[in-house]
Amino acid sequence: MVPRSEYEERQERARHRMAALGLGALVCVCGPFYERPGDVAYLCGHFPPFPSSEGDREVAGIGHAVLILDRERAILVVDTPYYREDLVVASEVRVARHLWREAAQLLPLNTRPVGCVGWDRLPAEGLEAFRSVGAELVRADDLVRALRRVKSRAEIQLLRDACGCAREALLASAAACLAGTPEREVAARGTAAALRAGADFVRYLRVHSGTWSAWATRWPPATDRPLEKGDLVLLDAVGARGGYAFDVGRTTLVGFDLLPWQRQMLEATQRALARALGALRPGATAGEVVAAALAAYEAAGLREYASPFVGHGIGIETVETPLLREGGEDVLQEGMVLCVEPGVYAPGRGGACVEEVVVVVEDGCEVLTAAIPRRLWE
Amino acid sequence: MVPRSEYEERQERARHRMAALGLGALVCVCGPFYERPGDVAYLCGHFPPFPSSEGDREVAGIGHAVLILDRERAILVVDTPYYREDLVVASEVRVARHLWREAAQLLPLNTRPVGCVGWDRLPAEGLEAFRSVGAELVRADDLVRALRRVKSRAEIQLLRDACGCAREALLASAAACLAGTPEREVAARGTAAALRAGADFVRYLRVHSGTWSAWATRWPPATDRPLEKGDLVLLDAVGARGGYAFDVGRTTLVGFDLLPWQRQMLEATQRALARALGALRPGATAGEVVAAALAAYEAAGLREYASPFVGHGIGIETVETPLLREGGEDVLQEGMVLCVEPGVYAPGRGGACVEEVVVVVEDGCEVLTAAIPRRLWE
Repeated sequence: MVPRSEYEERQERARHRMAALGLGALVCVCGPFYERPGDVAYLCGHFPPFPSSEGDREVAGIGHAVLILDRERAILVVDTPYYREDLVVASEVRVARHLWREAAQLLPLNTRPVGCVGWDRLPAEGLEAFRSVGAELVRADDLVRALRRVKSRAEIQLLRDACGCAREALLASAAACLAGTPEREVAARGTAAALRAGADFVRYLRVHSGTWSAWATRWPPATDRPLEKGDLVLLDAVGARGGYAFDVGRTTLVGFDLLPWQRQMLEATQRALARALGALRPGATAGEVVAAALAAYEAAGLREYASPFVGHGIGIETVETPLLREGGEDVLQEGMVLCVEPGVYAPGRGGACVEEVVVVVEDGCEVLTAAIPRRLWE
Repeated sequence: MVPRSEYEERQERARHRMAALGLGALVCVCGPFYERPGDVAYLCGHFPPFPSSEGDREVAGIGHAVLILDRERAILVVDTPYYREDLVVASEVRVARHLWREAAQLLPLNTRPVGCVGWDRLPAEGLEAFRSVGAELVRADDLVRALRRVKSRAEIQLLRDACGCAREALLASAAACLAGTPEREVAARGTAAALRAGADFVRYLRVHSGTWSAWATRWPPATDRPLEKGDLVLLDAVGARGGYAFDVGRTTLVGFDLLPWQRQMLEATQRALARALGALRPGATAGEVVAAALAAYEAAGLREYASPFVGHGIGIETVETPLLREGGEDVLQEGMVLCVEPGVYAPGRGGACVEEVVVVVEDGCEVLTAAIPRRLWE
């Protein structure tokens, strides 16, 4: 767990930036623990435990939480009395039926503007409630995002532990990839293994077999389709442990007789990963890492099938900035933790992807998922 | 699965209401399949397959989808080329990097107002994008909500199938409730059983043991705590199958020696459930069902510990309207499907809850989860 003192430090750093930007307070918004607990969880350790829903006239904001941070206080507004008093670091916690109304009443008025954090998480309903009280809201996502992008020592350890869950999930699911086994059985084994290993939840374990391996993402994540000998199978384990996310992927083959085109895809993906990791260091841009991966696919004659999306930050949420996309200008910094996931997807045939979690260190990067074999088809 | 013709009918019914309200079009917003696929999934069968995230300047709306419905067309805007062409019912699908900008460009202008559906799901970022193009947006949540509240025959079958997953989850997890077994092992067994039985995903399987059973909800849903003889254990299986949700709960006891206060809670909860189900019929209000449950707790001397929240609608989302809360004025209708979950929670001691899924029928209700034993402590 993140030590209490670290939450206090985070709040202090947020206050410092708040003051520098001339803001009177911050209002931060988040969703349930399995979906965007983000800035609120980061600042005070609260993970909303209830699924979000529309509510009705009298009850609204279900599954969300709001943290109001001003110069002295950190007031957490929640929708349930069942919050972890033993974990939450706040000067006050209010339980509200109508979260948005209650939070709006707490916004400081007649002072400086209020920075709103979570613009892409705040529902229109919440925005209107905040505006209706006359608060001068300004968008301040970057303020907390900037703090969250570089992980602390405690966070890196938590992400390392989360990768341990992914390891169990991938080893168990890869071992279940036998001819005749349905995709969903593979998902069941991997999911159970992650939960046993300490996962708070497993959002899903993707099992894309045969021509479905040409899909980088799919609903539903696993189907009734029985695996067949010769199938490529994409596995992607996504969840969290101790509030920090894992998102790790591998490709395997049912049976061990690779066809030439399958070998080409798998080997090129290994090289793309190696190239991307080689380019990952403080000062490199997201776009440079992507270009390195794509160059490997280019050299293998697979450029047209390569995904232009090669990864993303990870932390309390599964997908955080920076995004590793073509031309991305974000500059990598020591302490950032990233998912690197080069993949090649040939429609109607199949695909290959490998996804590692890495931390950017002084002279390059350290792979947190190195204990999970990459060449599962051998 | 919902037949194609039913999606077309849903769209037609939405158009009909749209016209009646003088709206030129509808813009509907939803989140990922595991979190609020709601109105978009309802109208066109699309379940966004990717986790939502903040994105960056060039990429936004990740994990969401937008459906624009006008008199002739149904245009689906998605963030990924990996949508199920075989399942989606739309006249056109557009893949956008910046979902909000793309959708905003498609809004009809200079005509009648555009009804916005998903006010509590639409992020502030999306709202601003829609407003920036000059569209006259009016809130129209009730329009699709009214369609969704009463389930079709196909939907009731899907919800029945989803309850089958919950049954496997609860039987497997209840069987794992032995002294010495950690909560997370119980969760692992139940989750795997639901996935094997056909679940698209299991959001979580709550395992609250010992004094934690006094918590109606908790983060994380299962911990390392080993069960002890004499523990009450609350189990709650939440997920979906075929796009329709399940949310079913039971309470069990480790070993079979009930203490008097435990028996009192468990028996009162059975009576509260029976009373609530007895009150459930077309024309009854949500508040009447709640009052019936609470009267049973009152009679047992447990009123002070009883939850005032006794259930909610369920469908594509886990928690839909109507909410079964004290004084709730929603009138129940034939074809509504509800989770009924009376519970009693004594802080520091323990609690009991049972949650059934029921469909409102002509003369009362039918319990879709009747195949899951209620008295697991016997």
